[in-house]
Amino acid sequence: MKPLITLTTDFGTRDGFVAQMKGVILGINREAELIDVTHDIHPFSVMEGALVLKGVAPYFPSGTIHVVVVDPGVGSERRAIALRSEGRYYVGPDNGVFSLVMADVESTEARGIENPSFMRPDPSATFHGRDLFAPVAAHLSLGARLDMIGPLLDDPVILSIPAVKELSSGIEGEVIHVDRFGNLVSNIEASMLDRPVEKVTAGKVEMRGISTCFSEGKIGEPLALINSFGHLEIAVNQGDASRVLDIGPGEQVTVLWA
Amino acid sequence: MKPLITLTTDFGTRDGFVAQMKGVILGINREAELIDVTHDIHPFSVMEGALVLKGVAPYFPSGTIHVVVVDPGVGSERRAIALRSEGRYYVGPDNGVFSLVMADVESTEARGIENPSFMRPDPSATFHGRDLFAPVAAHLSLGARLDMIGPLLDDPVILSIPAVKELSSGIEGEVIHVDRFGNLVSNIEASMLDRPVEKVTAGKVEMRGISTCFSEGKIGEPLALINSFGHLEIAVNQGDASRVLDIGPGEQVTVLWA
Amino acid sequence: MKPLITLTTDFGTRDGFVAQMKGVILGINREAELIDVTHDIHPFSVMEGALVLKGVAPYFPSGTIHVVVVDPGVGSERRAIALRSEGRYYVGPDNGVFSLVMADVESTEARGIENPSFMRPDPSATFHGRDLFAPVAAHLSLGARLDMIGPLLDDPVILSIPAVKELSSGIEGEVIHVDRFGNLVSNIEASMLDRPVEKVTAGKVEMRGISTCFSEGKIGEPLALINSFGHLEIAVNQGDASRVLDIGPGEQVTVLWA
Repeated sequence: MKPLITLTTDFGTRDGFVAQMKGVILGINREAELIDVTHDIHPFSVMEGALVLKGVAPYFPSGTIHVVVVDPGVGSERRAIALRSEGRYYVGPDNGVFSLVMADVESTEARGIENPSFMRPDPSATFHGRDLFAPVAAHLSLGARLDMIGPLLDDPVILSIPAVKELSSGIEGEVIHVDRFGNLVSNIEASMLDRPVEKVTAGKVEMRGISTCFSEGKIGEPLALINSFGHLEIAVNQGDASRVLDIGPGEQVTVLWA
Repeated sequence: MKPLITLTTDFGTRDGFVAQMKGVILGINREAELIDVTHDIHPFSVMEGALVLKGVAPYFPSGTIHVVVVDPGVGSERRAIALRSEGRYYVGPDNGVFSLVMADVESTEARGIENPSFMRPDPSATFHGRDLFAPVAAHLSLGARLDMIGPLLDDPVILSIPAVKELSSGIEGEVIHVDRFGNLVSNIEASMLDRPVEKVTAGKVEMRGISTCFSEGKIGEPLALINSFGHLEIAVNQGDASRVLDIGPGEQVTVLWA
Repeated sequence: MKPLITLTTDFGTRDGFVAQMKGVILGINREAELIDVTHDIHPFSVMEGALVLKGVAPYFPSGTIHVVVVDPGVGSERRAIALRSEGRYYVGPDNGVFSLVMADVESTEARGIENPSFMRPDPSATFHGRDLFAPVAAHLSLGARLDMIGPLLDDPVILSIPAVKELSSGIEGEVIHVDRFGNLVSNIEASMLDRPVEKVTAGKVEMRGISTCFSEGKIGEPLALINSFGHLEIAVNQGDASRVLDIGPGEQVTVLWA
């Protein structure tokens, strides 16, 4: 079976950066199947990369190798990491971008990328995506073992996601991501909504209950719903919630029980 | 031969929606070859999706499966559809997005997607692209028969394209799409231009005859030509016709015979 | 081994142009592996296409076929070209877009695309990407020989890149490209920096020496570094250099030796 390698970066697609990575991978393993997740992560937004990866990885077959390059610290002391968690492989910078897919650190095998034979010769200081992560992923897809790549890391960087607070009459979270449609993604997950919901408040906007789909609202009306990544989000039917409601990351989102 | 599955959506590429669909397809059929047509259909523009699909489908080999997710009505009562027309397969919402590729409804086999064994378990109300259309396409690519997917639909939704009118001295259509370069695509097709053309008028702009290529005009000059989808379009040599001429969808386009 | 075909165009991804090309290629050679380099070259920017291709091609395996369609002159007298240089193949318009990958014209075999059996029937005047370049690339990927495609061209078009000047105390070049992050790419290549650098000047901005990575600077501070294509570029740590410094293509870049 063809090995699958996915790519998630903030490189955009105007330049040849992503293509250089693909060329390097295919030069090592011509049989690799390359899947673009997105190259439009906001530049340097490690949180956005982590959220997208968390949403995408579970839908891919076991054994898939996910390369993520959102890497503001490239060339600094930040470590490079390859890890396996729940049967999937991840390769990229050790800056927290993988912290939402490591269910628990104990059952994850994380390795620092240190073995130069898995890197391109004379790796550049500015482009580890091409010179470290692409060749490591390609070698993993050929069957290289994680322990050949470098030493165990027992302290991979973990992002701090703001915690959802329990209120007497509900829960309180916040907007942590705005998607392309302007939908406001909160840190409140579906599993936390274990009781009937009376209303959801975001900034000055109030919404009745949880809707099941966009088209439930009138055009232009704000709705709270569970998005396809399992997070509570605020959307506007056929509109851009972030712009219409003037709300961005950090805004409080409150759920009141019925 | 590898089965081909194309994807056309309005999801953009900033989020992981498209990648989730790809993961689902490859989880069912690892051998499927995935081709992105575009994910930049204007959000909810069923007409634009239908035009792009009409332009693209004929260039793909027989047996190709085209998945289109431009789906403002997801979660409402709109039906989900899988169909075969002229040797090609189409999967998506039954909202008219396939109406330009169904040469005639009689020679098309259209099925409502109703068999839950072709869906993901517990399909979400907001993301049929991932939970219905991706798995149906993947199963078709493995050889599933259309009649296993659901009951015959004898009334798939058909978009109404404005008709081109016959004038005493020419024909009159309108702009139905603006492409990325700002070219103004009309509903007038090449086959309707069966006589020498004196001039083409769009809004207040007049063009002499039909040009054969962009570079025929001076830089900045408007031109009427047949685009690569076989429609009459108004373009500006090395410029953005929509902005330069201040013309958008709905604007009248008139052709006068010589 | 699967033949690799890369695609570089200025078509954007909103329309179906690129997908038509892919359909044509897969209709001729179902086993071809298609890699998107970028479809976001600035419309008609032959220079940008040439630079991206120069940066990308060396990372792909020998035998890869690179199709580039940045083609303002389509339909005019400009020739269509297929060529082999250093074991790689290139197909596209003869407008200079390949001039940075032809190390020397003597060791390059360049052919005019003239044999109609390698084109689609009735090729359009406006879309050679689909009707000439895609089928030629597909046939090359099936093993067609270059000499079957058309006559030898001994004068392929060569872009003039502004020359870097020697100064008594350094060298002087200019900005020739602005990438998606706003980084300012100059015509000064790493190999020309054979002495320690005291400072780099671009417009009114002065930078001390050559940095080895983005994160070396404070946030917002301009840096001169060698980019991943081997060119000297001016960047701003986590910012858009072109906007912050108000500098675009043509601006002088001076390097002073220590």
